[in-house]
This record gives sequence, C-alpha cells and structure tokens, in this order.
Amino acid sequence: MECDDYGLARAIERENLNLNPLQRGGVLPADAREALYEFSDGYSICDYCEGRLDQIRKPDITRFLEDLADFINIDIVRTVHGAREGKFAVMHAICDKGDTIVTDGNAHYTTHLAAERNRLKIIEAPNNGYPTFEIKPETYKQVLEDAIDKTEIKLAVLTHVDGDYGNLTNAKTIASICRRLGVPLLLNCAYSMGRMPIDAKEIGADFIVGSGHKSMAASGPIGVLGMTSEWEDIILKKSERHEKKEIEMLGCTSRGAPIATLMASFPHVKERVHRWNDEIKKTRHFIKEMEKLGEIIQLGVKPKEHDLVRFETPIFDSIARSHPRRGFFLYEELKKRKIVGIKRGQTRWFKCSVYAMTMEQVEYIINAFKDIIEKYQKS
Amino acid sequence: MECDDYGLARAIERENLNLNPLQRGGVLPADAREALYEFSDGYSICDYCEGRLDQIRKPDITRFLEDLADFINIDIVRTVHGAREGKFAVMHAICDKGDTIVTDGNAHYTTHLAAERNRLKIIEAPNNGYPTFEIKPETYKQVLEDAIDKTEIKLAVLTHVDGDYGNLTNAKTIASICRRLGVPLLLNCAYSMGRMPIDAKEIGADFIVGSGHKSMAASGPIGVLGMTSEWEDIILKKSERHEKKEIEMLGCTSRGAPIATLMASFPHVKERVHRWNDEIKKTRHFIKEMEKLGEIIQLGVKPKEHDLVRFETPIFDSIARSHPRRGFFLYEELKKRKIVGIKRGQTRWFKCSVYAMTMEQVEYIINAFKDIIEKYQKS
Repeated sequence: MECDDYGLARAIERENLNLNPLQRGGVLPADAREALYEFSDGYSICDYCEGRLDQIRKPDITRFLEDLADFINIDIVRTVHGAREGKFAVMHAICDKGDTIVTDGNAHYTTHLAAERNRLKIIEAPNNGYPTFEIKPETYKQVLEDAIDKTEIKLAVLTHVDGDYGNLTNAKTIASICRRLGVPLLLNCAYSMGRMPIDAKEIGADFIVGSGHKSMAASGPIGVLGMTSEWEDIILKKSERHEKKEIEMLGCTSRGAPIATLMASFPHVKERVHRWNDEIKKTRHFIKEMEKLGEIIQLGVKPKEHDLVRFETPIFDSIARSHPRRGFFLYEELKKRKIVGIKRGQTRWFKCSVYAMTMEQVEYIINAFKDIIEKYQKS
Repeated sequence: MECDDYGLARAIERENLNLNPLQRGGVLPADAREALYEFSDGYSICDYCEGRLDQIRKPDITRFLEDLADFINIDIVRTVHGAREGKFAVMHAICDKGDTIVTDGNAHYTTHLAAERNRLKIIEAPNNGYPTFEIKPETYKQVLEDAIDKTEIKLAVLTHVDGDYGNLTNAKTIASICRRLGVPLLLNCAYSMGRMPIDAKEIGADFIVGSGHKSMAASGPIGVLGMTSEWEDIILKKSERHEKKEIEMLGCTSRGAPIATLMASFPHVKERVHRWNDEIKKTRHFIKEMEKLGEIIQLGVKPKEHDLVRFETPIFDSIARSHPRRGFFLYEELKKRKIVGIKRGQTRWFKCSVYAMTMEQVEYIINAFKDIIEKYQKS
C-alpha cells in the first residue's frame, strides 16, 4: 500500500471565514488547544480512573460534571459521544421495541435514527410550512393528545433549535403540555446548549442533550446528556456484574481528547452564552443587510432568535443559470474572497451563520455577497 | 462559579515512562499530532460531507476505510466510538432481547456491558484458572455445544488478547468450531489490532472490533468494526427515512479529531505491526529479568505472546507491610525514578507493558525495580 495521503489538511476551513452553521460553535479557544496537546494520546483521560469516567478526579471530571449540571440547571449530567448518542440512550432506557414517541417536524435526522435504531414508531407534530416552518405549541399539544388517545406515548422529543431553519421553539410551553399529559420530554439542544443560556428546570424538560462539537467549543465527538434526578435510576442503571458501571454508558464514554477539550472550553462557553443577545443582534443585522441586496429572503421565524439562518436566494440561482461554472460559481466566488462553508453547487438556498464572528468580518461577508451580485448584474 | 481549574495537565504521564498497558498502544506519532492540530475544531471532519462519514472524500475517509479493511483482511470496515460500541452494534443488530450469546471467561467488562445493554444472556467458556488462565479451544467448543443443546446461540464472542493476563487465544481454531456449529464469531481485538498483524479472513471471524485509542495510536474515543460482506445488509442496514444513513451507526460516528488521528497514524501502525516479533522478544526479556529479581512471577500463558504482562509480586507486598507509606511505597519509588502507570497502593500484583519502549528504557525499568528491591532488602 502506498496510498496514505488521505488529504489530512484543513487549512482552507481554518484560514478562511467559515459560514457553515455546523462549524461555528465548535471552534476551540486556545485553552482547549492546549488541553488537546496534553490529552492527545489514546486513553489519556484514564490515568487515574478507578472504574468510571465520571468519577475521575485527575483531571477533575467529577467536579466538571457538577458544574456542567449547574450551568444548564439540571440534576445530573453525563457526557456521551454526541447529542444523537444521548437521545439513543434515553430512548433505549425508557422505551421498548414497538413503542411510539412524539417528535416535532423539524427534528434532526439523528432523532429519527435514534428512534429507528430502538425500533420505535414516530408521530410527528408538523411545522406550519413555508416560509416560517414554525413548530407551534398548540400543534404539538394537539398531536400529542391525539397520539395518547391511540397508544401509550413513552417519550416526547422537542428540537430546541432546529438545524434547517434555526427556529427557537417554545420549549417551556411544550414542556408544560407534556408534563400535564404525563409524557417525559427530551429537549435536543445540539444547536443551543453552549451558544445561548439554557435552564432545563425553568423549561421543565426531563432530559436534555447537547453537542460538544456542534455548540460547545469542543473537539468531536462529544455530547452532553442531562436528566432530572427522578430518571437517574433508569437511565444510569448499573451493571449487575460490574457494579460501578452504568449500562447505557457502556461503562464509560469519552476516553480522551474530546472531554479534555470540553472541560478546557467550559469557562469560555460559560462566558460566551452571556453575549447571546449580541449574537442575535449581529445575526439580525446580517440578515437585514443580506435581504437589502435583493432576491435574498430569510426563511424561518422572524425576527431570528438564533444564529443559524436559511436564505432563499433566487438571485444566485438566476446568475447560476447563465454562468459557465453553473451552480459552482457562488462557492468559487466566495472562496476567492476567503469565505467558505456554503456547499459547492448550491445557489437556490443556503444555510449560514456568523456566530462568533466580529462585526468587521460580518461586514466583509455582506460586502462580498454584494460584490458578487454587482459583478454579475453589470455583465 | 470560580472552579474551572480541573487539573487539565498530563505532564507526569507524558514525560515519564508509562507502564500502563492501556496507554502503550495509544501514543500518537508526530503525524497524528499534526492531524490533531488540523482537525481540532468540533465538526472539522464534516466540511465536505454529503451525508455519510464513510463517504467523505476530503479527507479521504472512503479510501482509508478500504485500506483499513485490507490491513486486517476483512470485507467491510466502519469506525465506531470504540471496541465496546462495535460489540454493542453487532449484538444490537443480530440479537433480540432475551437471546443468549457465548463469550470467553477472559472477556473485557465491556463485552458484558454490551450484552447487558442489549438485555442478552451470557454463557461463558471459563479459563483454566491459576496460573495461566488460558482459554482452551476444547473448553470453548464444549461450552458452545452444551449451550446450543439448550437454546439458540446468536453470537459467539472471543477476546483475541485479554486485558487481564495478555493471553493470545487460538482464534483460528475457535472460529472454525463456531463456523462448524453455525454460530457467527465476533473477535475482540482491542489489544491486538494495531499492535500485531491480524488477518480476519485467515482466522475466520465474521466480525472484528479494534480500539483506536488502545492499540492504534489514535486519540480516543474511536474503534474499528469490521465484518464479512454477508453481514453488511444486517449490520449496516439503512434508515427507511434517511436513505443514506446507517441505523446502527446513528448516521455517522466519529465527527472529528479521533478519526483524523487514526488516519494519520495508519502508516505508522501498518509499519509497526511488522515489528511485533521484536516486541515479543523485548517483553520476554523484560519478564525474564523481572522474574530473576525474585518473588516476581508472570501469570498467564508462558512464554508470553503479547506485551501485556501480569505479575504476581509477593516481594513488594512484603515490603509494603512494614513500609511507613504501606502500599503506596511502590508507586512513589517508581515515580521518583520517572516511571508511572502502576496504580497507587498496588503491590500484590500489577499489570504492565513495555510496548514501543526502547531496549534502553526497558533496562532502565528493570534496574529501577532491582534498585527498589535492594534498597528495602538491605534495610
């Protein structure tokens, strides 16, 4: 074999402005890069383990998990490999094959996969369609009530902020509906925990999942699973044979760099959520200026309450139609201007985020789009 | 909160000779440290994803997985979060709640946890007890045949090299027994894949799992799951709703640094398995010299065929009895000599490995133990 050059370089994405919403919340601060250096080797987190990851004291994972639980105001927290693995674990622990759960119509595909892997049926509370695609609490309520009339509903899942439109759902209202109907609620905060303040108790969720690599400035793959103490015995049930080990965690989850970076980034994350209002202001400014360019329309709820923005962009679609590079022109024009993160070939619509960018960078991006439009409108 | 100093430093383990067998195979070569720098940010591996991790071409994960499959000679390979997650996935895909599997008596606790999470029953082929603790193929055969008489056996699991004694099992013979009896075999190579040459086809295993952080010079958590093509449709079944996504993988597994380091380390790993005989020679030399010190006895099969060594050490136990620091003396004496990896307080026995150390380092370690013994025998 002489085929070991797998292209393991990432300068383009690191050295340019990356608009990909999937990437904005996972950028490591300097402290986390240092932790990565310290904990790069394989099982590096386990030097002082006495049997369980969450009980390691050096580094102090135990205290970190307590602080993390405080941060999102929930009783108990574990790290998992990602939000999806957290969802799978909850469903696996409380549902049986053939059971039915209710989700929102904007659920991430991993909610469906977690359910499918558990062989569960899904009933969906749809969004209200174009152009806002909103999950209305009254719809969720109606769907949940109808579902309960037909069968037992073991779990309700709600996407706190969805990955398609960046809509922030009214989790508190939906949680109180679920509570009234006696259905536990799992809140998927993959796009919110670590970006904006989260208070699970105030919302009233039974379970909450977050994503370290998506929104908590950590190296992937790592996620957060929080739960109220009433669920501890079920979700964190211990092995009969290995009394310390938690079955749903398969003993331990994150054995290396990801948890070290999540811990190292935590002070930075705690601080940045306080600046969430500034992020929203910045996003709204970005949208306003983009929409001014003409034939660029923000989809989803207005005004935006999250940094993930989906634009419909007929302007770029019409340019693409007569451009020799067709749909690739936009990616290429942006790349020339050191902007990446919008998929090659995509012009009819795209998702983007300016989360954690400076205002100067945002203005630069707006001007780049303006520039591209003007270039082709002239010709 | 002002409690963010979680002790995220690891200089002691990085800057000393670490005898912990869990750590020896996970040390990153320089190339992997570079990859870690490139792919440290969250979802960094997913810039060019079109829907599935194993189909990403930049970096070339697709080609890497093909090369990895060649390396262990199996048809199909996926990365998972670790060997345990690979075992869970196989059991989950082919067994139903209440089913029975057969394992060997030296199985890692994660084999039990994976089965327990799947609510499976375990029948065990025991080892032959003190002092070799060997898994004999005839015992495995007998247990498997007896089990089949009683119930359907959906899966046989065999630990290729166990983590307690470092015994290498006769996987080929056991695989042929399983094949004859019509039971698929899952081989747990967490301690072998990446250290020694593995040929899954030659062995005759249906499934094989490995550990990136334990034995493949990768940042944790990451593992390898290989399977013969006859199992592809079952283990890698696709979602009905998201046609590209593989259900047991929850869509994708490793979204960041771990897979980048596994890929970057691969040339190094491919090369180092060819030096396995030298590693064995070195280990045997280490054992011979340690046993010469007196009252230090290697447990497990002799001569050793793996670098993980378990010593019974009555000598250190008797020193501990009259030492003011009791059992802690050994850890402290070793640490003074810049040797770590043996648990604090442990003196009656310990596990260790000199894998990937130089002969000079091995001699230094032997002399350190000699030195400690002489110090206390004089007094």
